[in-house]
Amino acid sequence: ALGIKMKDLRHPIPNWVTAGKTVRQLIEELQTFENLDMPVRISLDGGETHQGISLVMKRDNSLCLLVNSEAYYRTEWQAFKGSQSRDA
Amino acid sequence: ALGIKMKDLRHPIPNWVTAGKTVRQLIEELQTFENLDMPVRISLDGGETHQGISLVMKRDNSLCLLVNSEAYYRTEWQAFKGSQSRDA
Repeated sequence: ALGIKMKDLRHPIPNWVTAGKTVRQLIEELQTFENLDMPVRISLDGGETHQGISLVMKRDNSLCLLVNSEAYYRTEWQAFKGSQSRDA
Repeated sequence: ALGIKMKDLRHPIPNWVTAGKTVRQLIEELQTFENLDMPVRISLDGGETHQGISLVMKRDNSLCLLVNSEAYYRTEWQAFKGSQSRDA
């Protein structure tokens, strides 16, 4: 996705960065938090920017996805709702 | 972040999209999965693309962040490691 394949990188990325976590591992880590009322945010840039979780879903019976859907609702969905009002 | 403020949107985004989840709510939803060995992936585009979780962290005692750090390790970190080898 980022252009260069992992095996082509000069300095191999540490395993913890790419290994990922299972549902079980994530539950265990979340349970160590003292304050369970903190909001959870997801980040794809090392924590620099982050978004809330819109929904938790299972895909193809093989992945658990934590999804933010705000971008869609700010763009395509606005156009879709616009077209609906014009039809009414 | 996406240019247009939420209050300026013509069609208000449904609350579930932006409300987010607390640590407690996320644990509860994750516990409903039958297969706890599925990998968890995070997505900021409604599920179209997704990445694994590199680490779970607390920030400022007020946020729980689920972070993918792969982009950093493919770019800046490569340069940093490169500069280290030249110094050696």
